[in-house]
Amino acid sequence: MSIELDLVPTGLVRAIEELPLVDHHVHGASTRDLSRKAFEEMITESDRPVPEWMTQFDSQVGYAILRHCAPVLGLEPYCTPEEYLARRARIGTDEVNRLLLGAAGIGHFLVETGYRGDELLGPSGMAEATGVPADEVVRLEAVAEQVAAAGCAAGAFADRFTEALWERSRSARGLKSIAAYRYGLDFDPAPPSREEVTEAAGRWFSAGGFRLDDPVLLRHLIWTGLERGLPLQFHIGYGDPDVDLRRSDPLLLRGLIELAEPTGVPLLLLHCYPYQRQAGFLAHAYPNVYFDVGLGVNYAGARSVALVGESLEVAPFAKILFSSDAWGAAELHYLGAHLWRRAMERVLGGFVADGEWSVGQAVRVVSMVGAENARRVYELGAG
Amino acid sequence: MSIELDLVPTGLVRAIEELPLVDHHVHGASTRDLSRKAFEEMITESDRPVPEWMTQFDSQVGYAILRHCAPVLGLEPYCTPEEYLARRARIGTDEVNRLLLGAAGIGHFLVETGYRGDELLGPSGMAEATGVPADEVVRLEAVAEQVAAAGCAAGAFADRFTEALWERSRSARGLKSIAAYRYGLDFDPAPPSREEVTEAAGRWFSAGGFRLDDPVLLRHLIWTGLERGLPLQFHIGYGDPDVDLRRSDPLLLRGLIELAEPTGVPLLLLHCYPYQRQAGFLAHAYPNVYFDVGLGVNYAGARSVALVGESLEVAPFAKILFSSDAWGAAELHYLGAHLWRRAMERVLGGFVADGEWSVGQAVRVVSMVGAENARRVYELGAG
Amino acid sequence: MSIELDLVPTGLVRAIEELPLVDHHVHGASTRDLSRKAFEEMITESDRPVPEWMTQFDSQVGYAILRHCAPVLGLEPYCTPEEYLARRARIGTDEVNRLLLGAAGIGHFLVETGYRGDELLGPSGMAEATGVPADEVVRLEAVAEQVAAAGCAAGAFADRFTEALWERSRSARGLKSIAAYRYGLDFDPAPPSREEVTEAAGRWFSAGGFRLDDPVLLRHLIWTGLERGLPLQFHIGYGDPDVDLRRSDPLLLRGLIELAEPTGVPLLLLHCYPYQRQAGFLAHAYPNVYFDVGLGVNYAGARSVALVGESLEVAPFAKILFSSDAWGAAELHYLGAHLWRRAMERVLGGFVADGEWSVGQAVRVVSMVGAENARRVYELGAG
Repeated sequence: MSIELDLVPTGLVRAIEELPLVDHHVHGASTRDLSRKAFEEMITESDRPVPEWMTQFDSQVGYAILRHCAPVLGLEPYCTPEEYLARRARIGTDEVNRLLLGAAGIGHFLVETGYRGDELLGPSGMAEATGVPADEVVRLEAVAEQVAAAGCAAGAFADRFTEALWERSRSARGLKSIAAYRYGLDFDPAPPSREEVTEAAGRWFSAGGFRLDDPVLLRHLIWTGLERGLPLQFHIGYGDPDVDLRRSDPLLLRGLIELAEPTGVPLLLLHCYPYQRQAGFLAHAYPNVYFDVGLGVNYAGARSVALVGESLEVAPFAKILFSSDAWGAAELHYLGAHLWRRAMERVLGGFVADGEWSVGQAVRVVSMVGAENARRVYELGAG
Repeated sequence: MSIELDLVPTGLVRAIEELPLVDHHVHGASTRDLSRKAFEEMITESDRPVPEWMTQFDSQVGYAILRHCAPVLGLEPYCTPEEYLARRARIGTDEVNRLLLGAAGIGHFLVETGYRGDELLGPSGMAEATGVPADEVVRLEAVAEQVAAAGCAAGAFADRFTEALWERSRSARGLKSIAAYRYGLDFDPAPPSREEVTEAAGRWFSAGGFRLDDPVLLRHLIWTGLERGLPLQFHIGYGDPDVDLRRSDPLLLRGLIELAEPTGVPLLLLHCYPYQRQAGFLAHAYPNVYFDVGLGVNYAGARSVALVGESLEVAPFAKILFSSDAWGAAELHYLGAHLWRRAMERVLGGFVADGEWSVGQAVRVVSMVGAENARRVYELGAG
Repeated sequence: MSIELDLVPTGLVRAIEELPLVDHHVHGASTRDLSRKAFEEMITESDRPVPEWMTQFDSQVGYAILRHCAPVLGLEPYCTPEEYLARRARIGTDEVNRLLLGAAGIGHFLVETGYRGDELLGPSGMAEATGVPADEVVRLEAVAEQVAAAGCAAGAFADRFTEALWERSRSARGLKSIAAYRYGLDFDPAPPSREEVTEAAGRWFSAGGFRLDDPVLLRHLIWTGLERGLPLQFHIGYGDPDVDLRRSDPLLLRGLIELAEPTGVPLLLLHCYPYQRQAGFLAHAYPNVYFDVGLGVNYAGARSVALVGESLEVAPFAKILFSSDAWGAAELHYLGAHLWRRAMERVLGGFVADGEWSVGQAVRVVSMVGAENARRVYELGAG
């Protein structure tokens, strides 16, 4: 169902290229200068050192950088890793960020700050670097861990977390749970009782109160998040080795989705690879479920067209969003947008070339998925 | 592996377009006049109201209706939902049904009557509306619930169900289990004992004897169905939110498939989305397993070519069937056939264009999957 | 993302066609003359008789034989099964093997000898028939069953197995576990204690000491294999009905992968269908994980391009290997290589035609996946 790009109708190409996207789940760009080792470790989800007998440039994301980021930095496409990194070093990280973030064509960033956020540009830094609005998405587990670090009695944890979350999210647009990383999505979906929370907090604090991975507390965070009422994002599927991919199948969230339905809070399933069809089913079945295929698009590179295609099956078009999930290297911010645009051109261009969709329908779906759905869900205004 | 339709050899196109299909799992068409709300709720598997901030026409099945059903009703392709529904209302439901059911080109319907069948055309109504034979597929759970509604002692349930099933299926061509909806496919595959059945029937009757969701009774129904000896269909995968998609993976049926193998009863896995490859594996491994990708084809619209492609991998071609699983709106009956034909043209046309298959081989597979396999399994005669 | 083969750049086609592949997991070719029944039973993974109402030639692998193997035997493509088998019988099995094994263009075979190896050519027979090196991969379970057959006390089993494994694998290049067939991959990943092994061996010997399917012993074999230090292959996913496909998801190996990481032993996930994306994720996340899509490529025939495409998503290219997993009929040895080459031409040719990859990058990946990665992992030298 894909198609040579030069066969895609000009009107559709223009609509896709010119649409200011809402990147509804992204992290900040790094302002550090990066050695080759540091750069290679930033273009993989693995947290292991890259083995000496390989280079991370020999991957879809590596080839996509050499193909698509190189011209943004003034190089020929398909340059070598050495040429690319030399150029990157020569023009400096600030300029690299300016060029790549600018070329991404984002109209609004929703920046999740909970993972090593102090090493990266925050929402205001992202807004400054790009000249477009950037709002925050607050990671529930990070707030809870700050509460623990500040010290509190187990019996006070629930109240202190509520206070901290309301305070921390005053101007936020959304919340995020990484229960998939910390436990798996196969937790009991019901809210835990106050007593269970106190008991679990006691266990956690006795163990030091660092990494929160107790399922009772993870559930409590989610249910407090639902009370807070902001759109709630969930890490789903693909990520670093910390995730048990088998236990991050979005279908495991069915119980929670149904219990949360009366709250009216939008639940946004992030990334989802390789469970994009499962996510699409949930978005079809439940009015409160949305999803995207960010992250996977970047790491699948030339194959991202397949992922985007699979995301456009049973879910209503009003339930699909765009994100890059970029973290650190600005190449990932650019590719997240650029590869998604190319994939949409090929997939929707294929529907049009096959006579299945009109150009107008394709343009409408691009606009919904790329920006309008996120503007509605997060109440961002007209953009 | 897909291809522009105008590159598909004429002989293959003609064979596909002209083949009278056997729709081996379909429900009746609705004869009611439908408001926009009622129509939109009929073109989704969700049982929730369509949220006011979206329309179900913004989906693959919605676009397929505007593209493919519109011309059957005398409209231009890619009309608006408003134009479509106005036209539909003007010509009236009977004429809409006549046009769309007729254009589907079905040679034989196997009509499953167990879900709100009184709101729809039955087998004889479908035969009358189309002029081709229509036989019945009997839903096991519906028969059991009728037995319960008529009133019986727990200890008499097993015998009463057997009598009712034999009576009810005298002229039926097949049976169907919706254990996936009622419990999940992760049930104990062995037949329950008489005592277990009595005990479970007692529990069920005490609770009112309405919706049958006890796994002991569901197993009993299946094993009684296997004794009855008609081909036995199973709902698999995609459906309404009543299904836990994770627990409707066809691989969960492995134990039952092996226990049922000596009975010689064909087991037909319906729909299967997104587990079509898993279903194909079972059809490859076990002589008594068949499958189709109905329902998913309709809801994937322009992407149905991907599903049909994935269904043509490891399963022998004698084990794959066609169905629409249409329910209610006759648009779904038409699209089930029409989208399948277009997908087969693209997928098999692609094999031929790539030099992998001959036209003769492609025509043979179309004929097997579209009609012959079902005629053999259900003993429908030559057609 | 696939493409007409005549649009693939000549340089890429030549690189793919001329590369001597390393088939890192294959079984021997059969030297028996085969009746039609015996041949059909060899071109399916099912161990059931082919039902009389179908022929296994009506399948993707059957059509691939008639399309691609026929010309190697001097017939027209798309001949009938009868013509094919008559020709096969006339020229004789030795000549069939010489022609098909020769046409496969393999540079080095790694022959797994543990399944009915006495009916097939062994490594030296394969080397003789092809004129290229063939080394052995030793199946752990076969060695253990030989130890049991020779007779030993339960308390001596662990030592006797170690001795036998070291002896048996003196010149082997790799080891293989079929725990997926014998139990499932959902076993406790930790090494069992000496006492547990003795106890389990006692149970096994009391039951006759034949088929080893005790999870304690299967784990013991794997951990002894990790001590032996040769690259360790795992059957994953698709295979004969002996496998519970649901319990052969590679994600179930996560615990073992992490525990085995410090040993530095490469873990090679074989076949993987339909879990190739899950395997790719593991190869992305863990430095010690590799995978291939052998077996599935053969049985998917004209659809193998889809599998190969899905294998080229998130895994670094240094972690993907080629295998045929052919067993018995030399058609499977030939098709394993030939269909893989055609799929790589289409998938990588598509990336090049789309402007996503350079020809040089595509040639590099072909060389890595087709030969270099296996040469490095198994220390085969330059080839």
